[in-house]
Amino acid sequence: MMAIQAVERYGPVEVVDPEDVDNDAFVVSVAGMGAPVVMIEKLPSGREAGEALLSLEKYFGRRADYLISIEAGGMNSTIPIATAARFKRPLIDGDGMGRAFPELQMVTFHLVGVKATPMSMADEKGNSVILDTVDNFWAERIARAITVKFGGVAWIAIYPMNGRQFKAGAVRHSLSKEISIGRALREAKARGANPLDALLDATGGFLLFKGKIVDVLRRATGGFARGEARLEGLEEFKGSELAIRFQNENLVAIRDGTVIASVPDLITVVEKDSAKPITTERLKYGLRVAVIGIPCDPKWRTPEALKVVGPRYFGYDIDYVPIEEAVKRLGA
Amino acid sequence: MMAIQAVERYGPVEVVDPEDVDNDAFVVSVAGMGAPVVMIEKLPSGREAGEALLSLEKYFGRRADYLISIEAGGMNSTIPIATAARFKRPLIDGDGMGRAFPELQMVTFHLVGVKATPMSMADEKGNSVILDTVDNFWAERIARAITVKFGGVAWIAIYPMNGRQFKAGAVRHSLSKEISIGRALREAKARGANPLDALLDATGGFLLFKGKIVDVLRRATGGFARGEARLEGLEEFKGSELAIRFQNENLVAIRDGTVIASVPDLITVVEKDSAKPITTERLKYGLRVAVIGIPCDPKWRTPEALKVVGPRYFGYDIDYVPIEEAVKRLGA
Repeated sequence: MMAIQAVERYGPVEVVDPEDVDNDAFVVSVAGMGAPVVMIEKLPSGREAGEALLSLEKYFGRRADYLISIEAGGMNSTIPIATAARFKRPLIDGDGMGRAFPELQMVTFHLVGVKATPMSMADEKGNSVILDTVDNFWAERIARAITVKFGGVAWIAIYPMNGRQFKAGAVRHSLSKEISIGRALREAKARGANPLDALLDATGGFLLFKGKIVDVLRRATGGFARGEARLEGLEEFKGSELAIRFQNENLVAIRDGTVIASVPDLITVVEKDSAKPITTERLKYGLRVAVIGIPCDPKWRTPEALKVVGPRYFGYDIDYVPIEEAVKRLGA
Repeated sequence: MMAIQAVERYGPVEVVDPEDVDNDAFVVSVAGMGAPVVMIEKLPSGREAGEALLSLEKYFGRRADYLISIEAGGMNSTIPIATAARFKRPLIDGDGMGRAFPELQMVTFHLVGVKATPMSMADEKGNSVILDTVDNFWAERIARAITVKFGGVAWIAIYPMNGRQFKAGAVRHSLSKEISIGRALREAKARGANPLDALLDATGGFLLFKGKIVDVLRRATGGFARGEARLEGLEEFKGSELAIRFQNENLVAIRDGTVIASVPDLITVVEKDSAKPITTERLKYGLRVAVIGIPCDPKWRTPEALKVVGPRYFGYDIDYVPIEEAVKRLGA
């Protein structure tokens, strides 16, 4: 709604294909950082991420040629649209994850050696910070502590890079893909088809579970929302149970005691009948949902990338099994 | 020793009288921030505070015309000397406290409306931060969280101001006073006089206690060293007890259950016979010490200043009584 409002007020956003970005262009990501559950309480005005952008531009003495989304999912896929509309910067059709992850170094740009810093942080009160750290893990550590002091949410401009770095690291056409998923859902609804089937088709995903949420444990801790949702099976999954553990984003799905999907693949919860997305901060008792698994971008499946975003990084002592293989094994 | 080494290596420091500072000169403080007890473990190389200085100068696009000490006491009275020697910046004979205090807003510049930010922070690993906050309390809050993440110590360049602001806020000639105290102690020793008497004369202080330290409680928490030292009386104080509570600096002295000195007056612990200073991080069981109370700079004794550094700010529900009055009452 913030993105829609910004476009209505300031005009449409120019969206640029990644291949049209010059090698020496100045590319910057804008995003919100912190526990999504806090962002719902402290709704942004749409100006905050722009303040972070302006502060980083001032630091570099250079206006950003392009904005990008750091991740494809949740609030951070639409904040750059609002910022691009309001501050008249073109937006590149691509992002740094092809999904959402909770920590700053969990972006494909990190995998190709791009530094998260210099990065800027702003809060809604007018406080502002510029960080320049020795590596991206230090950026995460220090920025997270500042986010907590800011009250749980910070607005950031991060991963300043040139066009060549962008093209080496980016997940391409994620904005187009998001639009095509939305369109598939709308068209299915219009023609009376099953939205869930349309979603699976549009995403290449696998149905992992249908069920009713019977419990949600949630703690906002260390600048993250961590927790677990428990589901009781419905329809063909009657008699089964599913647990989903999350840290801002869903990390693992455990069906009847067996891990059936894990990071870096996407574990997506949607309303069972409408297939509308339910982010972790909206999980609540009584919702009837479908859980789908979607293959992540291939960039995340190398041994080096799995060290950054695989299940072991998040404390799960399991090997990553690509979702399409995991589903095959379950079927066998 | 760091200051001596820097002067030996890079040459003497030019020390400037406050009245000789131009109104539009660019004045910056450099300091260490964090728990002193951690600084002892992570001894600075002498370069770190300079890194913070260079980073702030880069941010402003202007070289500092003068450095100053943010406080007169402990490591932060000598770090600016080392930085001034190494980076060839003149040092002004004055500071922002006329003593030492633990928090960033507890400086006389704050009392005349000077902003602590933009400030820079650096650690020994190469991480660097620029803060620009809405007020000096926010600067303290955010910088403290970063200090903790840096490992307990940060090196900062802070309170960038012009010469007019400096002259409006500064405690003058603190460096000269420190030198005169040192000289008085050396001369007393040379002529076989009592160093403690010489110290009391040189500082205008009052002897509050002589005793042996029998217990020290200490916690490094929230980026501070907090604790309490307990002393049993010696000589004319035999049979009495003294407790000193501290947060990096000594806050209150309680003799036999009665508060006999408190912030903002100075409570100074020295070796009983040599009158050599013992900072809070060096307090330890068995030391035989004298405790003296020294009147603070008059700038700290207004009702507004006492809100910033009086006993109530530190959680003690008592009225501030100037040390010279408190001593009179005890004598009565």
